[in-house]
Amino acid sequence: MRQRQFNLSQTEIPTQWYNVCADLKNPMPPLSPATGKPCKPEELAEVFPEAVIEQEMSTERWIDIPDEVRSKLAMWRPAPLCRATFLEQALGTPAKIYYKYEGASPVGSHKVNTAVAQAYYNHKEGTKRIATETGAGQWGSAISMACAAYGIDCTVYMVRCSYKQKPYRRSLVHLYGAEIYPSPSDRTEFGRKILEKDPACEGSLGMAIGEAMEDTLAHKDVKYALGSVLNHVVLHQTVIGLEAKKQLELAGDYPDVVIACVGGGSNFGGIAMPFMADKFAGKNIRFTAVEPAVCPTITEGEYKYDFGDTAKLTPMMKMYSLGSDFVPPPDYAGGLRYHGMSPIISELVNENMIDAVALKSIDVFAAAEMFARTEGIVPAPESAHAICEAINEAKRAKEEGKEETILFCLSGHGFIDLGAYDSYFAMTGRGEKA
Amino acid sequence: MRQRQFNLSQTEIPTQWYNVCADLKNPMPPLSPATGKPCKPEELAEVFPEAVIEQEMSTERWIDIPDEVRSKLAMWRPAPLCRATFLEQALGTPAKIYYKYEGASPVGSHKVNTAVAQAYYNHKEGTKRIATETGAGQWGSAISMACAAYGIDCTVYMVRCSYKQKPYRRSLVHLYGAEIYPSPSDRTEFGRKILEKDPACEGSLGMAIGEAMEDTLAHKDVKYALGSVLNHVVLHQTVIGLEAKKQLELAGDYPDVVIACVGGGSNFGGIAMPFMADKFAGKNIRFTAVEPAVCPTITEGEYKYDFGDTAKLTPMMKMYSLGSDFVPPPDYAGGLRYHGMSPIISELVNENMIDAVALKSIDVFAAAEMFARTEGIVPAPESAHAICEAINEAKRAKEEGKEETILFCLSGHGFIDLGAYDSYFAMTGRGEKA
Repeated sequence: MRQRQFNLSQTEIPTQWYNVCADLKNPMPPLSPATGKPCKPEELAEVFPEAVIEQEMSTERWIDIPDEVRSKLAMWRPAPLCRATFLEQALGTPAKIYYKYEGASPVGSHKVNTAVAQAYYNHKEGTKRIATETGAGQWGSAISMACAAYGIDCTVYMVRCSYKQKPYRRSLVHLYGAEIYPSPSDRTEFGRKILEKDPACEGSLGMAIGEAMEDTLAHKDVKYALGSVLNHVVLHQTVIGLEAKKQLELAGDYPDVVIACVGGGSNFGGIAMPFMADKFAGKNIRFTAVEPAVCPTITEGEYKYDFGDTAKLTPMMKMYSLGSDFVPPPDYAGGLRYHGMSPIISELVNENMIDAVALKSIDVFAAAEMFARTEGIVPAPESAHAICEAINEAKRAKEEGKEETILFCLSGHGFIDLGAYDSYFAMTGRGEKA
Repeated sequence: MRQRQFNLSQTEIPTQWYNVCADLKNPMPPLSPATGKPCKPEELAEVFPEAVIEQEMSTERWIDIPDEVRSKLAMWRPAPLCRATFLEQALGTPAKIYYKYEGASPVGSHKVNTAVAQAYYNHKEGTKRIATETGAGQWGSAISMACAAYGIDCTVYMVRCSYKQKPYRRSLVHLYGAEIYPSPSDRTEFGRKILEKDPACEGSLGMAIGEAMEDTLAHKDVKYALGSVLNHVVLHQTVIGLEAKKQLELAGDYPDVVIACVGGGSNFGGIAMPFMADKFAGKNIRFTAVEPAVCPTITEGEYKYDFGDTAKLTPMMKMYSLGSDFVPPPDYAGGLRYHGMSPIISELVNENMIDAVALKSIDVFAAAEMFARTEGIVPAPESAHAICEAINEAKRAKEEGKEETILFCLSGHGFIDLGAYDSYFAMTGRGEKA
């Protein structure tokens, strides 16, 4: 029997997060929307707990993970590292393909890694309610679960088109005890304005962030939480890569390339940054960020200061952006439809440390189908972008006869996204017959 | 940080299944529907591969797990054993609650443990297609995945009411490349007869088994596969309990009571039988089988010879049964709606080795909600029956001030069953507002 999983014990859950900001050549600070100058910590105090602001601005290389956060992470971590032996066989590739599987978390994605940390700091500082947005619903479920764990109320603004397309995501948020509203909603001034102009507006992540920000700023004891993009989110996600490094050591391997999908950049940052530290030290390793062709933030966006939301309430961040008014066309990969990109990832792209590719839905779903039939796991459509690129790499390795080692992040499962698979079947003429 | 998971390495995946039939006082053989006398192996040869028939009739205590089957099991096994520390805290119980989590498998339930074994034996003996039935869809997805792994075609007859209620299950089966039809269907004589009498018939597991059996018997190179009830299925599921025993040793514990839900009895048999071996040897340990109040097979059925299907095509089995014509009322716990019960479990109930309780849906969902909010995992409604009884035990332990050790099987997650949670919310006046 061939070993497929390389697992760590719970004592090996990382005790520190890796903060890549310590190693960036040219970190660009966020600018205050009021003054146009670098944000001061106190300007963010209405929005985030102090400990989170400190992490957002920190340039310390290693930051301790509180024991209470590790206790929550221990609900599902360390996450499995798997060798995709059956996929390799099907491809007939000499490449070794490993995936770090974050779908084994209770909510089915990596998002909960930062959710429990953010909920913990909010709880410690007396936050009564967290307001947030969600696109495809992964973040909304994760923060709802984390809030349930700490007894914090939670309000989720969910992009309206996803709210309609993914009823099970709503049910999940509901089950964790949070309230959830389709965005744009009539609960905020910003939402009402949009609905006045366009009552049928299907929403965007930028709009939903705007509503959650307005809700936060209008209420005392309410804080905001973001599931991607920001430095502290990438920081919290580094447990993915830190574990993966140890697990690859167990397997006796080291990656030639690390691949992950990017929406705001958090699962990519999470798996890639601990390996990026090696690249800073001179190691020969490549990184590929995979985005959907319909929202090509890195491959077609501009590197500039831009707002994180459509309401222009957030600080301005230096990032690849399609513009804060960008509303992506409807697409299955709901979670990758953000106009901007993590400033950390953006700066590393700018420093030529990260490559990016944009892939088409139809190719991504074909890869997902192949993966499901060989490896068994149904990937989230978002994560399937990484699978598709990993398969592309493995095919190239086959052509070139190279025994490459490929690592990708399988950031979540697709059990709640099976409706998107139905659309794919219909698109390829294999829709429901009965 | 408190250790919550007790994990084994992949080399510790069991190498042998435990066959409780070696230790039963009074095993009752199946009877041929044609002769009314004990079935001969050759009478089953049209339906099952030889190796499976041999296992079905074996009284060897230990049966080797083929290395190729272990390789497939290694896609997700060993499965986690978790201590429910946050649930314990919420209950304020002195009891220690452990759960064996089978929802981490690619298809989200324990069913795939036997699916890969059955697909392997079929593949080895040249089966071209497997015909089967599914109730709630767990078995249908599991056997579809296993057939994909071995390149076997697969036809699934899904109980019509579930087919309509659980579109994501159909999508999943479809994704694995199998064909799926609502039962009763017009593809079999038996199905057509039922539809003639009652075109709106919602189906039952007994009817769907009848259709799959007819499809099998009518075609060469087609075999049948059952996901529960039979001896070989319980045998294949003993990996659950064998792993759990080792993991509890790591935790330094041994259960006072082992709890699992029962439909046909396979996840119960899987976790309980390896501990039952200790009870045969004199150990003081209790077992509780939990069934839904709407399908109280053990608590209200009769211990007698009965057919496994409504078409009366299967051998007759000595089992607790509500009658092979029994059509359970609509209920959320789709997977527990079978009229019969594993002959092994039935005989052990008869020998007073197993207790049974029947629980109401509303209590079961309340337990599921509590579990989701404390432990994070969304349980399948079926598995939530075990959670509910585990909570009942923990509360009793609290009243009596006893530090009991409770082990239950969390046989699957509920991501594809969130529609059932919506019904529960509606029932308790907390339905969708927006």
